[in-house]
Amino acid sequence: MPLVRVDLSKDASQEVVRAVSDTVYEAMVNVANVPKNDKFQVISRHSSDELLYPTEGYLGVSYSPGIVFIQVTWNSGRTVDVKKAFYKAIVDGIHAKAGVRKEDIVINLVDVAREDWSFGTGEMQYAPKE
Amino acid sequence: MPLVRVDLSKDASQEVVRAVSDTVYEAMVNVANVPKNDKFQVISRHSSDELLYPTEGYLGVSYSPGIVFIQVTWNSGRTVDVKKAFYKAIVDGIHAKAGVRKEDIVINLVDVAREDWSFGTGEMQYAPKE
Amino acid sequence: MPLVRVDLSKDASQEVVRAVSDTVYEAMVNVANVPKNDKFQVISRHSSDELLYPTEGYLGVSYSPGIVFIQVTWNSGRTVDVKKAFYKAIVDGIHAKAGVRKEDIVINLVDVAREDWSFGTGEMQYAPKE
Repeated sequence: MPLVRVDLSKDASQEVVRAVSDTVYEAMVNVANVPKNDKFQVISRHSSDELLYPTEGYLGVSYSPGIVFIQVTWNSGRTVDVKKAFYKAIVDGIHAKAGVRKEDIVINLVDVAREDWSFGTGEMQYAPKE
Repeated sequence: MPLVRVDLSKDASQEVVRAVSDTVYEAMVNVANVPKNDKFQVISRHSSDELLYPTEGYLGVSYSPGIVFIQVTWNSGRTVDVKKAFYKAIVDGIHAKAGVRKEDIVINLVDVAREDWSFGTGEMQYAPKE
Repeated sequence: MPLVRVDLSKDASQEVVRAVSDTVYEAMVNVANVPKNDKFQVISRHSSDELLYPTEGYLGVSYSPGIVFIQVTWNSGRTVDVKKAFYKAIVDGIHAKAGVRKEDIVINLVDVAREDWSFGTGEMQYAPKE
């Protein structure tokens, strides 16, 4: 169910892209109760003038051209505590696997409803129970 | 009002892109009560390592590198039945027009409010009635 | 907090891209109560067949290949009046700075919650007060 959009630099190595992809999926399954194999991700690579961040930093965090934007659209209902654990699992995992600066990983969640998905064939696989 | 994001392979033919674009628009107008000419779409082409899906399949659906992600942001209020019919119209139409595998069409909806749009000129064209 | 996605033509000049980026940020801070330095934007350039709009126009607005899509994901709670002022500030500013047609600026907002953000380091910087 989650649809993950990852936006990062053209200069990011294949190793970094794979670390982001794998870690986000693992954090979903391990921390956020996402079903196994529910892995749908769209990666977009950008030139440096296409990824903008505050050069002065924000809230005490400083960013570099290695910034990685992760936007996850998924079903509503996850608690604040689950979301906190999800952020931490993503950032720790990507840093451990590929050395990306923890400050460079920016995450945003968008909550939708169960009926807002079709995973192929035109079915509404998560149709609400009647 | 809907803003449609389509993410698909660089190898998709122009015919496939046109089929996706036309079919999504037609399904909106015919099934989901979207006004005529309300057609705003952003297409992004990706290399094969940028479109990730579960190679084991998900919920019994199997995917190929021809996967097409369709994310529609539109106004809230549509019923589950309308959304079901919308998915079916999109998948049937794209398959009929361009032969895309029905299993390869993944759709996600994001509901927003009427005041969340400006269609040019800086106006809020759908401002709520007072 | 806002994550801004800008989709525009490959042919847009660097001046246009900078005008869009700067103006959206300024409108956020000046009109919509977004904190200073809260500037996170992803720009995507597209070929002309990847940005679709109604050639007949919509609601009396006509569009050109210079169309600019601006999608802003931010925290819920802003009023209709603030959103109206935000649209106007964006369109007036981009037009003044770079001569983009006012009709070519299409804006969409997506509201999320305070807990839906991590701005680096894996923290939930806007965690709800207890």
